[in-house]
Order: sequence, then C-alpha cells, then structure tokens
Amino acid sequence: MTQPSPSAALVADTLDRLRAQGPLVHSITNLVVTNSTANALLAVGASPAMVESAEEAGPFARVADALVINLGTMTAERARGMHAAASAARDAGTPWVLDPVAVGALAFRSTVAVELLAHRPQAIRGNASEILALDALLGGAPAIAGRGVDAAHDAASALDAARRLAERSGAVVTVSGPVDRVTDGRRLAEVANGHPLMPRVTGLGCTATALVGACLAVEPDPLLASACGMTLIGLAGELAAERARGPGSLQVELLDALHRLDRPTILARARLQLHPLA
Amino acid sequence: MTQPSPSAALVADTLDRLRAQGPLVHSITNLVVTNSTANALLAVGASPAMVESAEEAGPFARVADALVINLGTMTAERARGMHAAASAARDAGTPWVLDPVAVGALAFRSTVAVELLAHRPQAIRGNASEILALDALLGGAPAIAGRGVDAAHDAASALDAARRLAERSGAVVTVSGPVDRVTDGRRLAEVANGHPLMPRVTGLGCTATALVGACLAVEPDPLLASACGMTLIGLAGELAAERARGPGSLQVELLDALHRLDRPTILARARLQLHPLA
Amino acid sequence: MTQPSPSAALVADTLDRLRAQGPLVHSITNLVVTNSTANALLAVGASPAMVESAEEAGPFARVADALVINLGTMTAERARGMHAAASAARDAGTPWVLDPVAVGALAFRSTVAVELLAHRPQAIRGNASEILALDALLGGAPAIAGRGVDAAHDAASALDAARRLAERSGAVVTVSGPVDRVTDGRRLAEVANGHPLMPRVTGLGCTATALVGACLAVEPDPLLASACGMTLIGLAGELAAERARGPGSLQVELLDALHRLDRPTILARARLQLHPLA
Repeated sequence: MTQPSPSAALVADTLDRLRAQGPLVHSITNLVVTNSTANALLAVGASPAMVESAEEAGPFARVADALVINLGTMTAERARGMHAAASAARDAGTPWVLDPVAVGALAFRSTVAVELLAHRPQAIRGNASEILALDALLGGAPAIAGRGVDAAHDAASALDAARRLAERSGAVVTVSGPVDRVTDGRRLAEVANGHPLMPRVTGLGCTATALVGACLAVEPDPLLASACGMTLIGLAGELAAERARGPGSLQVELLDALHRLDRPTILARARLQLHPLA
Repeated sequence: MTQPSPSAALVADTLDRLRAQGPLVHSITNLVVTNSTANALLAVGASPAMVESAEEAGPFARVADALVINLGTMTAERARGMHAAASAARDAGTPWVLDPVAVGALAFRSTVAVELLAHRPQAIRGNASEILALDALLGGAPAIAGRGVDAAHDAASALDAARRLAERSGAVVTVSGPVDRVTDGRRLAEVANGHPLMPRVTGLGCTATALVGACLAVEPDPLLASACGMTLIGLAGELAAERARGPGSLQVELLDALHRLDRPTILARARLQLHPLA
Repeated sequence: MTQPSPSAALVADTLDRLRAQGPLVHSITNLVVTNSTANALLAVGASPAMVESAEEAGPFARVADALVINLGTMTAERARGMHAAASAARDAGTPWVLDPVAVGALAFRSTVAVELLAHRPQAIRGNASEILALDALLGGAPAIAGRGVDAAHDAASALDAARRLAERSGAVVTVSGPVDRVTDGRRLAEVANGHPLMPRVTGLGCTATALVGACLAVEPDPLLASACGMTLIGLAGELAAERARGPGSLQVELLDALHRLDRPTILARARLQLHPLA
C-alpha cells in the first residue's frame, strides 16, 4: 500500500467545485448505462442531461458545461447525434470526452470513433484493448472482429499506445485497469484506487468516463480532470465494496459512496500519483 | 408540519383500487428511466407495458387503461410513436398524462409537446421551468435554448402559468417541487410530502408522472388522480429516506416503500390539501 | 416440498463451466432491462455484450458464444438488427434463444417473431400467454390485440402448445410460471424454484431468458441448458427473497445471490426434475 498522495487535495478540491457549481453534463451514452450514469453524475453534484437525437444534441452541446460521448449500443441514428454534439462542442468550446466502447471489434463504430476524433475531444477513456485498437485505427490498421468490452490486454502494455494516441489526437488518454494510467504524452498520472468486484458491475467504465466529463467542466487541465474522475470512481468503488455482498449491492453502494465522499476520506485514501512521462 | 389531511383517505382508496384492478399502464418514456418507471408501476400494483414504436404504440394505447408520454431522450422516431399513441388514446377514451421533460430548452421537443397537446391529455406534470415554458409556448413564445430538467423557478411562482395552461389545454396541471401544486383552473391541490434527497435520484419526476398515469386508470377525476399520484411518490420518498444512506439506496428503498405502503401509513402521513382556487 | 433432484448436479456443473469459460453472450434486448440483463449475465460469470444495430449485430453474432433476442420495445430498426443477428448466428453455429415478449398482442412483433423462427433458435422462453400465442401464430392464427406481458394462462395448460411449438420450430420451449416447464417435444423438465415476489420486479423473465442463453454457450443440449438457466434464476430469486423487503431490494439481492451461488446451495435447493414426456 502506497502513502496518501499529495495530489489527493486536487481531487478533494475538484469534488468541492463539482458540488458548488453543479455543471450541466450532456451525455450521449449507451442504452445499458443511461440510468446508472445519470445517477452517478447526480451523486457527485453534477446535473446530467441525456440528449442524443440529431435534432437536439447539437444545440444542447453548446449550452452544456461538458459533453460525454460513449460508443456503446451504437446505431447509425445515434452516430448522427454524436457528430452533431461533438461538432457543436468543439465550436462552442465545450470540453468533451470520448469512451470508445468496443472500438476495433466492430467496423461501424470504429469508423465513427475515428471520425469523432476530428472534433478534438479533450479526453479519451478506455480499457487497454480499446486504447490499443483506437491507436491502431488512427495508424491506419483495419478493424478486426473481436470480442468487445472485456480488456484482453494489460493496462501497462497499453501505455505506449496511449502516448501515441494522445499525440495524434491531442486528447488526454486514460487506460483503465487495476491501476489506471492517464497521459497527455508528456505527463503520466497513475490511480491505484478501485476494487476487483467493480468489473462485475456493468458499465462502471462508462461511469468513470462520465465522471471524467464532469471534472472537465470544473478543471481546465484535462490530465488533472481525467485523473480526478478516475480517482473518484475508484475511491467510491473501494468504499462500496466494504459494504457490498455482491455486484448488485456494489452498484447501489457506489452511488451512496459518491454522494457521501468527503475531503478527509479523499485525503486519507486517494492513490493518485503524478509524474513526468519517462 | 400540517395535520393529516382528510383527503388522505382518497389516496388510500386509490391505492386499494390500483392493487385490486392492476390497470395496464402504457408508457412511452425516456431511456434513462424505463426500468425504474416499470418497477414503480409494478410496486403500486399496476401492470406496466413499454410499447413505443410507431408500428405498435397506436393499437396498444387503445387497449391500455392509461397512457404515459414522457418527452425525455426525444428522437424523431420516438415522436412518431408518441403521436400514434396519443391520437389513439384520445379516440379510444384512454386517459393519458404528458411529462414535458426539458420543454422550452430545445426546439424539437417543444414543437412535439405543443402538437401532442392537440390530443388532449387529461393531465400534465412538470417542474416549474417546464410548466412555465409550456405555457409560454402555447401562448406563442419561441423555444429558448435552456439547460433542461433542473427547475430554475419556484413552484409557487409557476402557479399562474399552471392555471393558464390548464385552461388552454383542458388538462389538469401539476407543478412539482418541495410542495407540489395541482390545478384544473378552478381547484387547487397541494401535496407537501417528499424529501430533499429525491432530486438526487434521476427520474423521480418521471416516476411521479407514471404514478399519475396509473391513478388516472382508476380515478376518473384527473385532479384527484394527479394529487394521489404525487402523494404516493412523495410518501414513498419520505419513507425511503428514513432508511437510505444516499441516492443509490433511496432508489431501492423507494420501490420497497411503494410496495409496502398501507392505509394506516397513508392516513397518518399524507399531506394533501384540496382548496378552491382563489 | 420435493426432495433435492439428482439433476441438481447438472446445474452446479453448468454454473462452474459458465464461471470457468466466461462465454460472450450477445444480447439484443428491450430498453427496460438492458442494465439488469447485463448485470445478471456478469453475476453468473458470463461476459455480456449489447450490440443491436443492423450494422453491427450480424458480425458480432458470428463471434459470440451465444445470442439472446428479446422482442420487447420492438421497433422496425431493432427488428433489422435482430434479423441480421439471428441469420448470422444460424450460419456461424452460434446457439441462440428467443424471448417473444408480448407476442400475439401486437401485429408487428408477431410478424417479426414468426420470421425469426426461420433462423432456427435452439431455445424459446415465454410465459404461458406468449407460448400459446406463438404456437397459434405458427399454426396460422392472426395476432389479436391483447394486453401484453402478464401471463393470462396457467403454465400447465400451455404445455400442449409448448410441445407443438417445439415440434414445429425445432427449438426447446420453456413456459415459465410458478413451475417452469421445458420441453423439446420428447422430454420434459420441470423447475419448481422461484418466489411469488419475482413477478413484481420488471424483466425477471427477460433475465431468465438471458441466463438460458448463457447456459446454451456451455451446455450443448438445449433442454438441459434451458432447465439450468431457469433453475439458476429461480434459486437466486428464492435466496434474494429471504433478504428482500420488497421488489426494489429483491432486484439488488438477486444479483448478489447469482454472484454468490455455490454448489452446496444448488445441490440442497434446486428443484429440477427431468422426465420423458408422457
């Protein structure tokens, strides 16, 4: 077990700002996690709004404080809303984060993912498989029919891909795993919070991305915002696991833990380290 | 704290009828709350059915005992299903309730909302912002890009708008808030149940609307049905908050509380007042 | 109460294989239960993936270990994804299960259901009303506007329909109810696990179908796979009901129970009987 990080105060400050400002977080997310994502955003103090049609997503992204785009349960119609929102976000200066769910495994969403990167997200979060695939796609590799959302690669081995992807896309890239790694190509943040039961609850990666989006609304440095979002979900998962009897109660306890999270707990338990990238 | 209202017996009677009759409540609701809405309807004894496509929604609205239309996560395709359902409900005499989520903030759904009013809902439920916006739209005001579902106005200040909207639309209008206000333009019902943690759970307003819909199936007076629905959700939220540790457990406890709600609890705790409108 | 069935070991073995192999279960399910279905699949050890668009569902069904198609919240677009997935599953030898939610009650999905049967599912699971309706449709009866998902017929009375449907479709047919009955036209499995509170939670029938799909991935005999899936959900419901205070906590406890289910509990409590069909 590492000592509490001095960066923990940053996480506590960011959560204070979330609760004080209640930023409007526009989410276009997949059908599996709409409810849990909205509840997690509410639990940290943000104001979620799920607006996803091509008719509405563009105008809404202009007035929102941050935008989250998640490629799960992709359809052609949802892709139109995503393009409208990402394009408007870039125009209006709304920071946004991309969650490339199962990218590389399916040709259609791989194309959408690459197209969306042209709208310059501030942040990207995926598991090791997804980050490796997105990096390969940007480098011109074809999509390969794969098996989707379960990470088949170790997060550490994906760090090179994250670094390249950060340089090519201009976004801060988070590779989630037992230790989350966040890089902008120059700096590296590592978050060692979390619990092994978390992957047995559907969509906690999507929730992590949504919390990164919320932090982007109140923290201008996307590396720090990404690291704060990952620390908040990891901490909440740890606290929840202390009370949960399985994945059902973990999901419930996680929302309670996000809502109850306070500065002393963050300072005592956050495992966030910031380094220059070697 | 006010004394128990004599109208509390009305709420208990309505819940008895819900449980005895198990009305079929047809819901076209948003992607965030499909699960929680269906579960809340089951917990009060109704039989929920989520049928939303243009192909199926019309025929189904004819055989249902009530219809709920909620404008969240609007798309053009969902709008077609809503029109088919509302039109069929009016023809067949199926009572229906409209939840104008984020109306006024977005042009597309504002247009849909005004069009749906032509199918004459028996009831409308929204927060103060939504009721003010819908009243303004009916009066010819343009939609204004706003920030959506969080109420920016006090419920009391929206009462004038509710009264006008009731007169223009022919529907009973509920403005939800710390005290919910329900009016048909002549009478006023006020419901003082509820708990401050409830807005930290996504979609409890949508759940309230669904319960209003269920009550419309068993109570022919839409003002009483609306007031009963609001009292049921408010009471369940209060009871749930006594056991919850945060918004995650509140959502779970609320379903248990709706299921367990009994006549003595309703008589002791309902805070429903009926008045003529001054 | 019957004695523990010798078939209980089969259920325990199947669960062991699920946890060891973590099969990829491709689900196209309705909007109400995406989250609860994914979580139930994770809780038994499977790896769920919700991929439903016409663009992606076909290729994904080829690489998945099993496919689940559920007709709830049907739309024309979802039907296209279902056809693509079922067709690819048949070509690739991916076993699949059909849940004909509310079939017979609505003309559009009745047509889709009959068309999908041409892609030869290994298994079908529905309540008595749905199995009676699907059998009637295959026999040339018209769809009749009905009231949807609540079973209006006793499971036993639907056994004849199940037998005919099994013979006509080539699928193993499960009629769920207080006692679930599973038949391939020659053999009959009966599962007496479950709890009366379970129908007060939305979509547990859909969850049952998903677990049947997971079992199809690890058990080549579709009758045994179907019976194992029904036993797992029934047992988990019973265990959950011992701790739940209502339908909200039942849903949470059920996921915990699926996750915690172990061989001694299965051997002691499974109520699965296998017979030749008289």
